[in-house]
Amino acid sequence: MEFRHSDKALHWQERLQRFMDDKVLPRSAEYWAQVREDHTRQPQAMEEMKAQAREAGLWNMFLPGDHGAGLTNLEYAPLAEIMGRHLWSAEVFNCNAPDTGNMEVLHMYGSPEQQAQWLKPLMAGEIRSAFLMTEPAVASSDATNIETRIERDGDHYVINGRKWWSTNMGHPNVAITIVMGKTDTDAATHQQQSQILVPVNTPGFRVERMLSVFGYDERPIGHAEVVLDNVRVPVENLIAGEGRGFEIAQGRLGPGRIHHCMRTIGAAERALDLMVERLLSRTAFKKKIAEHSVWEQRVAEARINIEMCRLSVLKAAWMIDQGGAKNAKSEIAQIKVAAPRMALQIIDDAIQAFGGAGVSGDTPLAELYAGVRTLRLADGPDEVHNRTIARLEYAKHGGRGG
Amino acid sequence: MEFRHSDKALHWQERLQRFMDDKVLPRSAEYWAQVREDHTRQPQAMEEMKAQAREAGLWNMFLPGDHGAGLTNLEYAPLAEIMGRHLWSAEVFNCNAPDTGNMEVLHMYGSPEQQAQWLKPLMAGEIRSAFLMTEPAVASSDATNIETRIERDGDHYVINGRKWWSTNMGHPNVAITIVMGKTDTDAATHQQQSQILVPVNTPGFRVERMLSVFGYDERPIGHAEVVLDNVRVPVENLIAGEGRGFEIAQGRLGPGRIHHCMRTIGAAERALDLMVERLLSRTAFKKKIAEHSVWEQRVAEARINIEMCRLSVLKAAWMIDQGGAKNAKSEIAQIKVAAPRMALQIIDDAIQAFGGAGVSGDTPLAELYAGVRTLRLADGPDEVHNRTIARLEYAKHGGRGG
Amino acid sequence: MEFRHSDKALHWQERLQRFMDDKVLPRSAEYWAQVREDHTRQPQAMEEMKAQAREAGLWNMFLPGDHGAGLTNLEYAPLAEIMGRHLWSAEVFNCNAPDTGNMEVLHMYGSPEQQAQWLKPLMAGEIRSAFLMTEPAVASSDATNIETRIERDGDHYVINGRKWWSTNMGHPNVAITIVMGKTDTDAATHQQQSQILVPVNTPGFRVERMLSVFGYDERPIGHAEVVLDNVRVPVENLIAGEGRGFEIAQGRLGPGRIHHCMRTIGAAERALDLMVERLLSRTAFKKKIAEHSVWEQRVAEARINIEMCRLSVLKAAWMIDQGGAKNAKSEIAQIKVAAPRMALQIIDDAIQAFGGAGVSGDTPLAELYAGVRTLRLADGPDEVHNRTIARLEYAKHGGRGG
Amino acid sequence: MEFRHSDKALHWQERLQRFMDDKVLPRSAEYWAQVREDHTRQPQAMEEMKAQAREAGLWNMFLPGDHGAGLTNLEYAPLAEIMGRHLWSAEVFNCNAPDTGNMEVLHMYGSPEQQAQWLKPLMAGEIRSAFLMTEPAVASSDATNIETRIERDGDHYVINGRKWWSTNMGHPNVAITIVMGKTDTDAATHQQQSQILVPVNTPGFRVERMLSVFGYDERPIGHAEVVLDNVRVPVENLIAGEGRGFEIAQGRLGPGRIHHCMRTIGAAERALDLMVERLLSRTAFKKKIAEHSVWEQRVAEARINIEMCRLSVLKAAWMIDQGGAKNAKSEIAQIKVAAPRMALQIIDDAIQAFGGAGVSGDTPLAELYAGVRTLRLADGPDEVHNRTIARLEYAKHGGRGG
Repeated sequence: MEFRHSDKALHWQERLQRFMDDKVLPRSAEYWAQVREDHTRQPQAMEEMKAQAREAGLWNMFLPGDHGAGLTNLEYAPLAEIMGRHLWSAEVFNCNAPDTGNMEVLHMYGSPEQQAQWLKPLMAGEIRSAFLMTEPAVASSDATNIETRIERDGDHYVINGRKWWSTNMGHPNVAITIVMGKTDTDAATHQQQSQILVPVNTPGFRVERMLSVFGYDERPIGHAEVVLDNVRVPVENLIAGEGRGFEIAQGRLGPGRIHHCMRTIGAAERALDLMVERLLSRTAFKKKIAEHSVWEQRVAEARINIEMCRLSVLKAAWMIDQGGAKNAKSEIAQIKVAAPRMALQIIDDAIQAFGGAGVSGDTPLAELYAGVRTLRLADGPDEVHNRTIARLEYAKHGGRGG
Repeated sequence: MEFRHSDKALHWQERLQRFMDDKVLPRSAEYWAQVREDHTRQPQAMEEMKAQAREAGLWNMFLPGDHGAGLTNLEYAPLAEIMGRHLWSAEVFNCNAPDTGNMEVLHMYGSPEQQAQWLKPLMAGEIRSAFLMTEPAVASSDATNIETRIERDGDHYVINGRKWWSTNMGHPNVAITIVMGKTDTDAATHQQQSQILVPVNTPGFRVERMLSVFGYDERPIGHAEVVLDNVRVPVENLIAGEGRGFEIAQGRLGPGRIHHCMRTIGAAERALDLMVERLLSRTAFKKKIAEHSVWEQRVAEARINIEMCRLSVLKAAWMIDQGGAKNAKSEIAQIKVAAPRMALQIIDDAIQAFGGAGVSGDTPLAELYAGVRTLRLADGPDEVHNRTIARLEYAKHGGRGG
Repeated sequence: MEFRHSDKALHWQERLQRFMDDKVLPRSAEYWAQVREDHTRQPQAMEEMKAQAREAGLWNMFLPGDHGAGLTNLEYAPLAEIMGRHLWSAEVFNCNAPDTGNMEVLHMYGSPEQQAQWLKPLMAGEIRSAFLMTEPAVASSDATNIETRIERDGDHYVINGRKWWSTNMGHPNVAITIVMGKTDTDAATHQQQSQILVPVNTPGFRVERMLSVFGYDERPIGHAEVVLDNVRVPVENLIAGEGRGFEIAQGRLGPGRIHHCMRTIGAAERALDLMVERLLSRTAFKKKIAEHSVWEQRVAEARINIEMCRLSVLKAAWMIDQGGAKNAKSEIAQIKVAAPRMALQIIDDAIQAFGGAGVSGDTPLAELYAGVRTLRLADGPDEVHNRTIARLEYAKHGGRGG
Repeated sequence: MEFRHSDKALHWQERLQRFMDDKVLPRSAEYWAQVREDHTRQPQAMEEMKAQAREAGLWNMFLPGDHGAGLTNLEYAPLAEIMGRHLWSAEVFNCNAPDTGNMEVLHMYGSPEQQAQWLKPLMAGEIRSAFLMTEPAVASSDATNIETRIERDGDHYVINGRKWWSTNMGHPNVAITIVMGKTDTDAATHQQQSQILVPVNTPGFRVERMLSVFGYDERPIGHAEVVLDNVRVPVENLIAGEGRGFEIAQGRLGPGRIHHCMRTIGAAERALDLMVERLLSRTAFKKKIAEHSVWEQRVAEARINIEMCRLSVLKAAWMIDQGGAKNAKSEIAQIKVAAPRMALQIIDDAIQAFGGAGVSGDTPLAELYAGVRTLRLADGPDEVHNRTIARLEYAKHGGRGG
């Protein structure tokens, strides 16, 4: 057992942090001004930073093996934390969700043709993609509820359904989506589903509206409600084969949750930094707020919980590296529950430390809160992950297992 | 001791609820459409509803004695809860903050001239007002920190300072503000401050920007940052006398907190209603979500906490009625801490029950959360109210008191 | 609505408090010394205090109507709080559980012969009684699980079963028990059970062992595990009639929970008193611990939660007075959950304030904690009460009700 | 970074676990029967198990370097967890507190004579020892408060003071104590204190009484209140030198807290095991309690929190191994706060799952709760550790540091 990152991992962290400090953070204001000016065009600043990052070799670092930077999940995790401190920066490095997950899926399950047509431009950062899974009409906590139909009709599949929380659909460069739906409602529960590639310009594919998160539109990425109305795509667009949708979804969740959780830890660290700076800079009742002991308790709890949570995420990453996501079913569920909860408490405390500035746009805290709050729901609510964990515990004692 | 409301109070509740059901809620969509269309004009729907409410005698119900409906704080409190379920509706009845507090101040402390010029049109609902107290540069948790200066110069006062969270400054009809500032920095701590009337069209009075709450702009009311740059007003605009600002501020806080807390309870009841309806309407893992026992626990906790909190607020209202806000210093602080905390937990659970719909604009929950979250900061953060409560406890045992 | 106790109630509070201060608390040490010396004999001090209390008219105050002091539940509740500060004192006034509940049952459901034989000496404080309901072999959270059998055999009932947490079985004067068991396992779920009187000296009635609560034996009262092995009692011992056991049990729970909850509030107030005194008397890091703001927060939360909880209990008492326990099903469940939780947090904070003295016998805190902890389990665990509350909420929205 | 224990560590875990299963747990009942029979004599069963453990090489495993088993803190930590599942078992392996800490102190700071006289028999398990630090008269949260005086008088030191929570003073074999007191009240704050060896049979050394923990006497080990009344010991008994008491105390705290925290994790795992077994074995409302989803949530939270906490403790152990306790000031404070809190919640949930059996002696849960609750106070309360952590955070931002 060894708690020091490898030299290689430390080296990547140092490179990424330096690039962030030198090339990215100084252009934050410029980037956001361009987004505000016209959120339907890809900001020039982003394209320039992307070119620099790619040239610097800080590109597709999330992707295992030769296609990316050759990093393990454990090595990549701290990089996700660094990007998570300023969430928008992940696109600079082509490491933003859900493109990352979609690239993983195409990397692992895509046919050579699918990879040539979609994976290649995604990895080049030329196009963006969305993943259409959650549906407004059913409890997404139970994945077997999905109602979208993917029906074979000769050389095509015909897709009908309504999806929402389709992240990236607001991105100017979005071109392709992966849609989850049922090809066979009579099959065994976990063989009913399939995943299929649907370009956004396919007839019948319609963005119904964009969704807000606590009042934020989350431009330029955005979350859409999408209607698929007799959408026809060639049978070659199916990924891996009929009935493998659930399997593919499971596979992407492991590394994806590591990424989410590490970014969440980055957000928590940033909130803690902001909180401490505020506490040290303001005075009430004749002493610095930092010296009021209730804040000592909160700052300490923040540090305790960040440290505990980060170790858990890193261990889960290590377990995936050792034996795949199946090897870490409980651990992946554990961090999915633990990380957002931890971060929300810290962000909320930071808001309290800032007073009115905390809930307004003068700090990033309220928007961080909104974003992290959705993580208690995205990819399944806490309750379902806890159900998984509990059933694995029960199974250890001979009870009905996970 | 008697826990039934008086017949009079029940009658008012019934009247208000009926008016809400018949005249207000059916026009909600129309009103909000008009706001979205042009938030700089007072919506026609609002003016019509106001006229109807006034005609129905449901007008200025918050104001004690003959000037309003002749209701005690205890009798008015449940009306605030009813309006709190749909917060925007309070304006229909001329019962919205901060106009209510400003009217109370002018009612109790205003000169006949001040009352004729400003109280009369406020009570008629013809103009709106703001209260300028909090400042961005100092910890508002300690009221003695205020830096705005009100300096005598012949027959005028000259005011310099920067305020924010000035609610109502976005309202199309806003005309007058009450500004808190220091007239004498050498006086005893609680005699340094004064309150003064400043019309919004006075030269040097400038709205710097509007603030957001989480991602909401809270139109049409809005919260502004305001700069007062050598603003000159006649000495007659001072309220009550130099050095009485703190006293006036204290006086308004008692009833105002009853109103806030009851509205917050209304918000919590609404969130609970929505949550239960959702739980009963969705199925996961082959049974209604309502039947998963973790939700039984949360629904029960919601009911327990709402009931406890409402009784506390009603008791505080009763104590104010019995002997004024000074009589209920601890109780008023208690509910200020308890009500938002209670409501936030319930709203957050409701969000969890709704999944993605909970954080989006498809339910009122995320906006309710944002609004209630600010109540843990507005009029002083929880920590300062808890300090007050604790010191009153210490005083009972001979410790340094509140 | 009126939050002041009636003059009559205030008068009783004042009388009881004075008697406590003058006659009971000064003899606390003497009483406990006698218990420690020989816990199998009724302490002389207790008998003397009982005689004085009876003479002073402070006797059986819990019993409604002419048989007691003629107090309503609302009037009695604050007296239970006063006794709850020093739990052992309730026996002085013949107001201790479970004798109170047993007397209520005999008062409401007992035949004249049962009342003459058992209610009369109980009301005179000459004998003590136990209530044998909970069983070690089944989940007591679901009352239908009870396995004890009460079988008719000619003019007798034959009882077989195993009970535990039979409070008072350690009392030197215990003479009679009320046993809950099934007379007809084929009847409808809530008509299977009956209650029957079983004297402790009946052949086959055996105290198997005394139970501890945390490390406390809770002498002199004690909790026993009791075996009923072919215990025969005359058919006249059955209370009210076969199949009415559940109905009788429900009836006793309303007032009993008011008593428990008010005593629990008394315990919380005492813990808060002790905590504040400690905080004001010790110094750390150069200031009184009371001035460390984390303690301000905890003291304030304690006060907030006690006040909210007390109002809820008083309202539930008032509702029982208005229309019986059936009228207050949710409210009674609410306080059963809320009061122990509230008190446990305060007692735990007080323990923290005292350090080592808090967990030892030098303060009453650890024993209070142990005692209140059992209240989250006794008469059904929190989870079952929350289930009841939730189902009543669901029923309001057309869901399956309580 | 590597989350797998070394082969060496795994081997030791396997050896210890096997010995526990084969030689220790089967004799639990026998051992406790002997303790209950006569707690003033060392149970024969313990001596036999000790002899076996020593022969098996499972002896003094806590001690680093050649004197023990040659294990690092990281390697020893999981062994402490195994022993923590059955806390009394630590003595079997001569690994019980506070003997472990006292042996460490003598190992690091003791003179050759001190080591020959006291360390040798301690390491042989022939005698037991206590550490006398905490005092009843002052807030132990601030170590500078200590009032015991150690005054030089010729070739002797004369010691006067009152200590409590002196663990092991009830042990039949206790022979030696290490006493913390002030040799120079004029010195700099952290140079006033010294540590000195005081045999329990020295004239003037008096056990005033034994203390209880939530009603438990914690025999055979016990916690004593000790009076030192003009106790004279030779100057050679001073450890390391005058004024080094604080330094010595700090040194022992690092490894000691690892041990405490890992034992606490062992206790938490045991509580979780018991809880799950109970939930799977009982039925309420027609299904296994395990299937009520509120219990899924609690079991999952238990697993999440145990895993996070264990990683933090192991990391702190690793940091001590890397650079000493000074290297891990924040981390050691973090686990001291986190581990008991985590375990208390799980034990409390387990109590709730067991109902009445949970608070009684039929499960180990109530006694575990009591024991772990003291860990939030022993070696400084949570609040002081949080203060340390917070100040280290503040220092990162230029604030006044730890």
